[in-house]
Amino acid sequence: MEERDSQMHILVTNDDGIQAPGLLALAQRIRELGRVTVFAPDRNWSASGHVKTLDRPLRVRETTLADGSSAFTSDGAPSDCVAIALLGFTESVDAVVSGINPSANISHDVTYSGTVTAAMEAVITGVPGIAISLDTPEGLKDPLDFSAAAAVARQVVEKVIKEGLPKGILLNVNVPYLKESELKGKSITRQGLRVYRDVLDKRLDPRGRPYYWIGGEVPTGVVEEGTDFGALSAGFVSITPLQLDLTAYQAMDVIKQWKWK
Amino acid sequence: MEERDSQMHILVTNDDGIQAPGLLALAQRIRELGRVTVFAPDRNWSASGHVKTLDRPLRVRETTLADGSSAFTSDGAPSDCVAIALLGFTESVDAVVSGINPSANISHDVTYSGTVTAAMEAVITGVPGIAISLDTPEGLKDPLDFSAAAAVARQVVEKVIKEGLPKGILLNVNVPYLKESELKGKSITRQGLRVYRDVLDKRLDPRGRPYYWIGGEVPTGVVEEGTDFGALSAGFVSITPLQLDLTAYQAMDVIKQWKWK
Repeated sequence: MEERDSQMHILVTNDDGIQAPGLLALAQRIRELGRVTVFAPDRNWSASGHVKTLDRPLRVRETTLADGSSAFTSDGAPSDCVAIALLGFTESVDAVVSGINPSANISHDVTYSGTVTAAMEAVITGVPGIAISLDTPEGLKDPLDFSAAAAVARQVVEKVIKEGLPKGILLNVNVPYLKESELKGKSITRQGLRVYRDVLDKRLDPRGRPYYWIGGEVPTGVVEEGTDFGALSAGFVSITPLQLDLTAYQAMDVIKQWKWK
Repeated sequence: MEERDSQMHILVTNDDGIQAPGLLALAQRIRELGRVTVFAPDRNWSASGHVKTLDRPLRVRETTLADGSSAFTSDGAPSDCVAIALLGFTESVDAVVSGINPSANISHDVTYSGTVTAAMEAVITGVPGIAISLDTPEGLKDPLDFSAAAAVARQVVEKVIKEGLPKGILLNVNVPYLKESELKGKSITRQGLRVYRDVLDKRLDPRGRPYYWIGGEVPTGVVEEGTDFGALSAGFVSITPLQLDLTAYQAMDVIKQWKWK
């Protein structure tokens, strides 16, 4: 382990589970910045949202990543792993990095995404949070190349640790599926518009009773300059600062003017 | 069923499960506004976040509420119930109302809350969404009195249907635990600051192996004028418009000025 700054302690997590290759790729590059603790769920929690498990206890066990390094895993959600770590399971943490998710997390994805909500959990606790996702083209099979996204993650985390993040802000980073040398640069973006193409797929089980898949084509997005999806489409890394204050300030006056009794 | 406007069709859901008394109290009052479909999870999904279940099919079954009325229940999350309904399981829906949650959903609770994320799911699909929660004092036992919150819900839903909601906006409504006549009024608020008091509670199982509870005291909040928590503390109904665009616009310039390579 190269220890550039032995004081720095970074927590690495994900929502795809402890064995996901994107987690290992991320941990290996982040280790260049300091001491890393990997603490991730023992299974896939994709599209699981922001979870706080209060109705059952959680197990934590020590395990080994594919490169032989030590890691922790729990039967909780990504945000539970972050909560347990930050509540004192590990020593004090300087930043939480979540990823590398093998598909983009843009637009409305951010409230569903375990990758992003793990970073939210960090920010709620007062620790900088960064989510990293790779915009893998549809249909591309494993093994994916996480190297460019991992290199970007290292750069962003280094910047965040140096500059600090404004209070209540996390960074949602998406990286195009390109070689590092092919990336056009980094673009600070706003959340764009997702186009979900879900359809309800009703089927009958062997006993003739209905069940339902949420099916349909994978979501796409509106290509618009300045947005996460627009940046990715143009070959740029998209960095979107997200805030935990969801208040729609500009709507407050409108709603105040409704004639409330 | 009183049919003031037989055209109006309102979907009622919750995150506490189909048998929760708050759901029935809500459905009964909302029926005064039009036709209601109740579609809620078959179990409690509190603090479960914004879920989209894509890795398994979902069952839907028809059931009966405690007042003998018909309802649908599914083994999916609250947001899954809304998605299934809006993807065509039911006919076209004019508004989605989620609740009545038996504890407040304020501040950072909104990304964890199944009650709130059910309303988010509606708004993503283009249907107005309203979340209703009751700020029950700590330690108060069942049966809770949902009547004031249900009356407020009816008023808010009626307003929303009449006035419409700006695009991408949901309403997060919290009602103090008071009699309807004791409510001070309605306050249009911003999201306040939660103070979580979680602690990590390590225990040993009968075989001497550790497990962990996320424990500690129930969260409190910062009493501040203009916020959800401030309004509730003063006896007002808190109505916070929330947006799905989480972009931290004021942080974009700061982050643009970091020296990106």
